[in-house]
Amino acid sequence: MPVYSISHVENVRVCVVMVGLPARGKSLIAQKIVRYLSWLSIKSKCFNVGSYRREIASTDINAEFFDPKNPEGLKYRQQAVNSAVEDMMKWFLDENGVVGILDATNSTRKRRDEILKLCRENYIEPMFLESWCNDQDLVLQNIADVKTTSPDYLNRDSDFATQDFLKRISYYEQTYETMDSKTDSDLTFIKLVNVNSQIVLNRIESYLESRIVYYVMNLHIKPRSIWLSRHGESNYNLTGQIGGDADLSERGWRYAKKLPELVLKSLGEENQHTNLTVWTSTLNRTQQTASFLPYQKKLQWKALDELDAGECDGMTYEEIEQKFPEDFKARDDNKYEYRYRGGESYRDIVIRLEPIIMELERQENILIITHQAVLRCLYAYFMNVPQEESPWMSIPLHTLIKLEPRAYSTLVSRIKADIPAVSTYKEKGTSQLGEVIGASNKSKSRDLINDSECV
Amino acid sequence: MPVYSISHVENVRVCVVMVGLPARGKSLIAQKIVRYLSWLSIKSKCFNVGSYRREIASTDINAEFFDPKNPEGLKYRQQAVNSAVEDMMKWFLDENGVVGILDATNSTRKRRDEILKLCRENYIEPMFLESWCNDQDLVLQNIADVKTTSPDYLNRDSDFATQDFLKRISYYEQTYETMDSKTDSDLTFIKLVNVNSQIVLNRIESYLESRIVYYVMNLHIKPRSIWLSRHGESNYNLTGQIGGDADLSERGWRYAKKLPELVLKSLGEENQHTNLTVWTSTLNRTQQTASFLPYQKKLQWKALDELDAGECDGMTYEEIEQKFPEDFKARDDNKYEYRYRGGESYRDIVIRLEPIIMELERQENILIITHQAVLRCLYAYFMNVPQEESPWMSIPLHTLIKLEPRAYSTLVSRIKADIPAVSTYKEKGTSQLGEVIGASNKSKSRDLINDSECV
Repeated sequence: MPVYSISHVENVRVCVVMVGLPARGKSLIAQKIVRYLSWLSIKSKCFNVGSYRREIASTDINAEFFDPKNPEGLKYRQQAVNSAVEDMMKWFLDENGVVGILDATNSTRKRRDEILKLCRENYIEPMFLESWCNDQDLVLQNIADVKTTSPDYLNRDSDFATQDFLKRISYYEQTYETMDSKTDSDLTFIKLVNVNSQIVLNRIESYLESRIVYYVMNLHIKPRSIWLSRHGESNYNLTGQIGGDADLSERGWRYAKKLPELVLKSLGEENQHTNLTVWTSTLNRTQQTASFLPYQKKLQWKALDELDAGECDGMTYEEIEQKFPEDFKARDDNKYEYRYRGGESYRDIVIRLEPIIMELERQENILIITHQAVLRCLYAYFMNVPQEESPWMSIPLHTLIKLEPRAYSTLVSRIKADIPAVSTYKEKGTSQLGEVIGASNKSKSRDLINDSECV
Repeated sequence: MPVYSISHVENVRVCVVMVGLPARGKSLIAQKIVRYLSWLSIKSKCFNVGSYRREIASTDINAEFFDPKNPEGLKYRQQAVNSAVEDMMKWFLDENGVVGILDATNSTRKRRDEILKLCRENYIEPMFLESWCNDQDLVLQNIADVKTTSPDYLNRDSDFATQDFLKRISYYEQTYETMDSKTDSDLTFIKLVNVNSQIVLNRIESYLESRIVYYVMNLHIKPRSIWLSRHGESNYNLTGQIGGDADLSERGWRYAKKLPELVLKSLGEENQHTNLTVWTSTLNRTQQTASFLPYQKKLQWKALDELDAGECDGMTYEEIEQKFPEDFKARDDNKYEYRYRGGESYRDIVIRLEPIIMELERQENILIITHQAVLRCLYAYFMNVPQEESPWMSIPLHTLIKLEPRAYSTLVSRIKADIPAVSTYKEKGTSQLGEVIGASNKSKSRDLINDSECV
């Protein structure tokens, strides 16, 4: 019997059909849903009709291409939708896809009915997700953020791009039909009005649908940052033992004392007074690391505790290799799925972190002090790191990571404390840890985080 | 630093103002929200205006009392609302209430505006929750289920009660103003249309509000049952050890073999073919107990694993008392909050069970095979058992419990397997377990579950 997370109860496939005029944040929502579900091991994929259109039609197009009276434009656009839908259906059937998202305007009932029919023929649940917005400032902001740099406006100045894009929208407005709780009362749909100031839910039935709804409900578009740090070096780190509830080492305490300064540095001069909320685990080493931070709101979460090593708690990797050689190898072979005897796997951590992720989406400025495995899972969510890689990422001690989620990327900056610490990174196939890493000694381990990396 | 569950992040107080004609399930929704939030340790209380009205006006009333042209009726009804609102505000301010629910029709904008104003003056977030229904069958079903037995119709026959109640509704309809996304666009509200076939959410902002929304979204009114059982007696039960991952004892296997028969017995003759879904923990003893059940869908949940006893895993209570006498006493003093060294508390279990409860609300017929502490927490949710009592409930081995949630109660029936097992019940202040309990030996321990008890 495989182990189920809350997300695998039903045998349901869902096609999320995006609906909305251009520049309503559809692609952003679609991509966030895919990232969230993939992180929960639910096989998901987004099919963006714009990309298909760019592959078959010239990229050097302007608004007239989208005039409903332009027969050539119509032909290419129909062809693009057909290819996207065809690929999506193939993906559902041949690759056992679970949630496919058709990212397009799908602006007429006629078009939506065609997709509906196709879904039903293939036993796929269609769920429409409309983003409706009449707040012109939001629309202009969206155009400025993502449309003027779109491949459609390569080598064009941004004024032209903005004006042309507004014209494109007006062409779509000529035929657009919004979802309506009377006319569309038989359909499963979510309608977001001006981001999420109002939400209409119609016939949301399966669990998977209700999870998507809850996630979308909690998204916001205010700018914010998230800070991540492991605890300072602990006495167990010094002896190479895993688990436990050890205190900080002398160097760990130095990191704790320096952390407030690193945070201020990361805030930049104009934001020194930003008020952060600090989240720690329930273990001593994270609370000690947080103890010099000047922020009033500090919360302890059991869900942020380190991966439970069960019977191996308190052992070194060498001891584990000697005592449980088969387990040691099994873990190296599939570190994401391997569950310690009486303990946890990475998959187990992801399940217990899900409410933390939901809360992080809702909140603004949070600083999290937690543990290696937990930090890897959080980082994997924000940076879309695949499961087979995330348990092998090197996230060194004594380093503050700042994440700034943007529309289609997350900016990462990493601030090193210049305080040496042991390496806790174990490479596949060995029970040895790396050497002590200092400010100038670059870790030899595979280090997926580069300064100011942008994924 | 106290430990926070996902529910305690914000310092927000919410007044849920129910809105709706009579017989729209408002009280049922209100009471379920209170039970759910209380189980999550969020201080919640429902203030039912009908009860206040019955205290001040004669109980022997008929529909004419609710005629908007009846000055005496109006006077009493206004007085009842005033008292309820006054008590609720006192409870918020003097007793640090977090979620108060005003359970009344609140059918006019004028009335709602008064409550809104009062909430805002007291820094309480008002959230309106309307149950709107034009499905006459649902309304008649509701009247038949709960209204004809209401104290308002004591000693009246049910035909009179139904007719009189319909008349009462028609009086309310004369002045009723539904929530509207245009007129009420500035308010925080949830509008449920025909249970939850459509839901309108407006300006849902705080986390607490979004949790209430998600819970209400997942409620359904289809009849269903939930079966609960501990695993069969294990080898650790025989030696009095806690935790671990032991196999079933010989008697435990006998229980596993008998379980299918007990389930059939509980289904009754007409429902022998009901298809159940079986949920177990990831531990051997629950999976072994499920192994003879003929149902195809069996899911393993990590969240159903037994309370993690951390460093005490594998010990007997006597050993714990000797090795950690202070911990042993601390646990007896506050068993709900006590967290084993490196392990969990009952509060921790409730947090990890929350998604299980949500899923149980959504599903229909589930049989759960789990462990003593987990079962206590699940049972506490359905039976509204207070936190200080739930960790002390006796839930014996080799007994199948069937829960049938009804509008205002949950029917419990208990089917004993007639296979002896050790008692795993430890009374406060001792490290001794009870004696072996058989079919005819009634356990001496405090046993909160009686056959066919209805709470």
